[in-house]
Amino acid sequence: MTHTSPLNYSTHSADYLTDEEHGIKVPVTRIAQDDSPNGQPNEPFTVYRTTGPGSDPVRGLPALREEWISARDDVETYEARGRKLEDDGAKALRRGAASQEWQGAQRAPLRAKPGRRVTQMHYARNGQITPEMRFVALREGVDVELVRSEVAAGRAIIPNNVNHPESEPMIIGKAFSVKVNANIGNSAVTSSIAEEVSKMQWATQWGADTVMDLSTGDDIHTTREWIIRNSPVPIGTVPIYQALEKVNGDHQALTWEIFRDTVIEQCEQGVDYMTIHAGVLLRYVPLTAERVTGIVSRGGSIMAGWCLGHHQESFLYENFDELCEIFAQYDVAFSLGDGLRPGSLADANDDAQFAELETLAELTQRAWEYDVQVMVEGPGHIPLHLVRENVEKQQQLCHGAPFYTLGPLVTDIAPGYDHITSAIGATEIARYGTAMLCYVTPKEHLGLPNRDDVKTGVITYKIAAHAADVAKGHPGARDRDDALSKARFEFRWRDQFGLSLDPQTAEEFHDETLPAEPAKTAHFCSMCGPKFCSMRISQDIRDEFGNVDEQARIVQQGMAAKAREFREAGGTVYLPDPAFPAR
Amino acid sequence: MTHTSPLNYSTHSADYLTDEEHGIKVPVTRIAQDDSPNGQPNEPFTVYRTTGPGSDPVRGLPALREEWISARDDVETYEARGRKLEDDGAKALRRGAASQEWQGAQRAPLRAKPGRRVTQMHYARNGQITPEMRFVALREGVDVELVRSEVAAGRAIIPNNVNHPESEPMIIGKAFSVKVNANIGNSAVTSSIAEEVSKMQWATQWGADTVMDLSTGDDIHTTREWIIRNSPVPIGTVPIYQALEKVNGDHQALTWEIFRDTVIEQCEQGVDYMTIHAGVLLRYVPLTAERVTGIVSRGGSIMAGWCLGHHQESFLYENFDELCEIFAQYDVAFSLGDGLRPGSLADANDDAQFAELETLAELTQRAWEYDVQVMVEGPGHIPLHLVRENVEKQQQLCHGAPFYTLGPLVTDIAPGYDHITSAIGATEIARYGTAMLCYVTPKEHLGLPNRDDVKTGVITYKIAAHAADVAKGHPGARDRDDALSKARFEFRWRDQFGLSLDPQTAEEFHDETLPAEPAKTAHFCSMCGPKFCSMRISQDIRDEFGNVDEQARIVQQGMAAKAREFREAGGTVYLPDPAFPAR
Repeated sequence: MTHTSPLNYSTHSADYLTDEEHGIKVPVTRIAQDDSPNGQPNEPFTVYRTTGPGSDPVRGLPALREEWISARDDVETYEARGRKLEDDGAKALRRGAASQEWQGAQRAPLRAKPGRRVTQMHYARNGQITPEMRFVALREGVDVELVRSEVAAGRAIIPNNVNHPESEPMIIGKAFSVKVNANIGNSAVTSSIAEEVSKMQWATQWGADTVMDLSTGDDIHTTREWIIRNSPVPIGTVPIYQALEKVNGDHQALTWEIFRDTVIEQCEQGVDYMTIHAGVLLRYVPLTAERVTGIVSRGGSIMAGWCLGHHQESFLYENFDELCEIFAQYDVAFSLGDGLRPGSLADANDDAQFAELETLAELTQRAWEYDVQVMVEGPGHIPLHLVRENVEKQQQLCHGAPFYTLGPLVTDIAPGYDHITSAIGATEIARYGTAMLCYVTPKEHLGLPNRDDVKTGVITYKIAAHAADVAKGHPGARDRDDALSKARFEFRWRDQFGLSLDPQTAEEFHDETLPAEPAKTAHFCSMCGPKFCSMRISQDIRDEFGNVDEQARIVQQGMAAKAREFREAGGTVYLPDPAFPAR
Repeated sequence: MTHTSPLNYSTHSADYLTDEEHGIKVPVTRIAQDDSPNGQPNEPFTVYRTTGPGSDPVRGLPALREEWISARDDVETYEARGRKLEDDGAKALRRGAASQEWQGAQRAPLRAKPGRRVTQMHYARNGQITPEMRFVALREGVDVELVRSEVAAGRAIIPNNVNHPESEPMIIGKAFSVKVNANIGNSAVTSSIAEEVSKMQWATQWGADTVMDLSTGDDIHTTREWIIRNSPVPIGTVPIYQALEKVNGDHQALTWEIFRDTVIEQCEQGVDYMTIHAGVLLRYVPLTAERVTGIVSRGGSIMAGWCLGHHQESFLYENFDELCEIFAQYDVAFSLGDGLRPGSLADANDDAQFAELETLAELTQRAWEYDVQVMVEGPGHIPLHLVRENVEKQQQLCHGAPFYTLGPLVTDIAPGYDHITSAIGATEIARYGTAMLCYVTPKEHLGLPNRDDVKTGVITYKIAAHAADVAKGHPGARDRDDALSKARFEFRWRDQFGLSLDPQTAEEFHDETLPAEPAKTAHFCSMCGPKFCSMRISQDIRDEFGNVDEQARIVQQGMAAKAREFREAGGTVYLPDPAFPAR
């Protein structure tokens, strides 16, 4: 595996799509193509460039959306809650040093002016077309009214915290291309700003549409700060992880106040969506007691333990309206966590899972009352024949709110290969309307993903998302397949590599057995060699026997000869030779 | 990636299932399991051991089926066609040396006595239960009458050439577990018997149910000989590849006589099934003229070129009845090749593909007239939403003859990852009735698979086949998932590794971040650490709050307290707290 970006590939170059009237610039990669052997040119192929404009880690990205946000005149700066000692964990090592390293902007946080809601859903419902919607429309190649109306209806979200002005707008909804999220973050202490930023960039480089920072260790606040300031994609978090750090890991010590304070801290930093496990109700916990794998969501197990330990209903559920009020002030989207998702095929589609889904549906509507954007998280581990029911039930119960699933894995027997077991389920669930897929890496269930695992996870999920787009008949989804297949048939090897999701690996694999430069233009490859190359023979047929009309003439000759032979042998036209059954 | 067999894994041991009454022994692997934390024992988990009893490459395997075959008294030895100089290719280097190396049996070939048919289908149709059927029934855990009746109806095949007595019977049909084929063979000259045998063993070690030898280079006859003598699984070939070697790669020089002679040569060696591209008819060729990727089957392109070049109908189609007569004498099964399968999403389910399928259906019935076993090959490259139509159409047109597909790939844009793009389609097509899946390796479209690629391909396809078995509701299919998930929840790490498709990789991945021996028994892993381990918390909940009844009691207390609080706040029972919606 190589560690370079597809953008470094020889046929790739950076460019922009522009909407000059509205001052919108969407970064794209142009993939140059050679002419066909018959001299016909092949237009460059354009794909969205998720990496954004690129940044110096210690300075961050430019604040692309700053003017769009301020022009709406509905936000104001205020004296922030400020970073507290406990935000980075009791044993954080680098707070001082890290602050000195940072050379970029230090902005006071924004939030809605009193009584205002600053969510994209709020604007959409009021018929307002925002620059964020225009960016998304240009990026997706759709009419901006489709974007507005889907966001207004709650069927799509544009996660864009006003405090993350660096982000490039993207949309999550079943009317749009299927998106992929990559999880990063770990519990180890890392060494520098650059390293944290590099992880996030590595994921986006291979096409992650959003990134979740699931860090649970020390320096959690500072780590997240660096990631957000450099991220061109929306950042998601699970705030209960940080809240738990603040109570030294004792989940019984969690309180609504600590949680709310953590949420506000993250709102001020610019987190774009947060996983909230507010659907794990006290009365649902016993439904998991006889499961094969119990509760497998971290947030779900923490809340279940809290509810039973306190003999009380979840503080997340009880205070959900206050969360909505907070989120509406920053445009943070809910990602309603499925804390009771199944962790094995045996537990799939059970009472616990579907009971929680009904509560998530109720919470979706409550959030919509505050114009807060919502997506709903889904499983998990599901046998293939039960996958479709998950998305259809979620879509029906949650009135079309975007579904965001982890896989699902369609078998439990292949640890080490769960990117594959889950890509099978992910393609199926996306095909029927799931809007975003959370990747799974080969290390799932076993350990922390390294750089190669992240890349493998992202590419595997780009495959799943793309295959689902094609299966859904999403407009233009098959264009890249067709361009690559045409290049393949015409032995344009460089174009075949350039158009693939991972050009370097494709070229490396080719070169392993036929490394010489002439092999890049050879009309065969090492799989079959020249004598057995079906595509070469197939092309020779076209060269030798011409186009379809000429071939048909040859067939007629052959059939005429056959018929003559047949008649000469005494055959009758009423009993045709079985070699040529009438049809 | 490690190169050792799962059988070398510490919890695995070799054993047999036995049917003593009929003298049948089926090799299995017993996967030992530790007791559960509550002291309950976990029975060893049993899986079929595809590797067979193991062999010394220069001596081959024992002739397991020799007595079964001779006891039927319907075959006789005869003076073989004998190996000819051209059989190994004009430039073969090792014929002399290789013959001297061989120390195993030198058997005269068997074929049916005059007028007899020696196929499993023939026996099944006559109501005869063969030892092969008993072996299969024990292996699959089904009633032998199901085996007989499915074979009699043509809905399943047991590919077992009388000249491959070393093979362990296996069955391919939709009523049985989904099978996986691995392709081996290349065009390079290899160095020793041991190396050829090792490739086949490597594939079966990871679970390949059949192996196709697609060699096209020198020493093709000798290579195949060694593979067959050592193979516990059925061996398939594409005889037109060897025929083409005999005419120095000039496909216009092919004749029926050369082809037939090659087929007989391979029947005498013991090939169990052969791909025959007899459905590529002259009149179908123009249907491919405007495809994006033309003809992508080697055999298909060779035959298309021959038909157009000769202005004649395919000699395979014209002489199909003679082929049936030959196959019936050895019990060779047809694998009817889909020479016009699509090579890109753009060409999927087109007129060329489905026209050929109709001819394959006609040929299936012709073969059945001779009691010859048949399976039908399928694509290829198909968008996910069109996959199901392929198997349903094939099953309907071909009266349930087993379908054997290559993938299909559900997108063309990921060369280097086509084991994944194709596993998605393979799971879908198997779920709806495909009986055997031909693996695709990461090197597909790019180069020759190496040892790691073969392993990755086989395991990826074991995942697809297994996930399809689960989705089909195949009896007992989920047992291994449940056993592994139970081990996972109980932190029996060694059992989790041992039960997985690739124990070594699972253990390696785990050890990358937590290598110490105590971590194998730790109640968490490096993914989340102890504080965030949902399964540990979930178990703690069970330990602390007891079983489902005790948990329900706590919930009642919580709800009673809530209700009290609610009443005290002046609430009315007619407007329940939204925190507890009635349901």
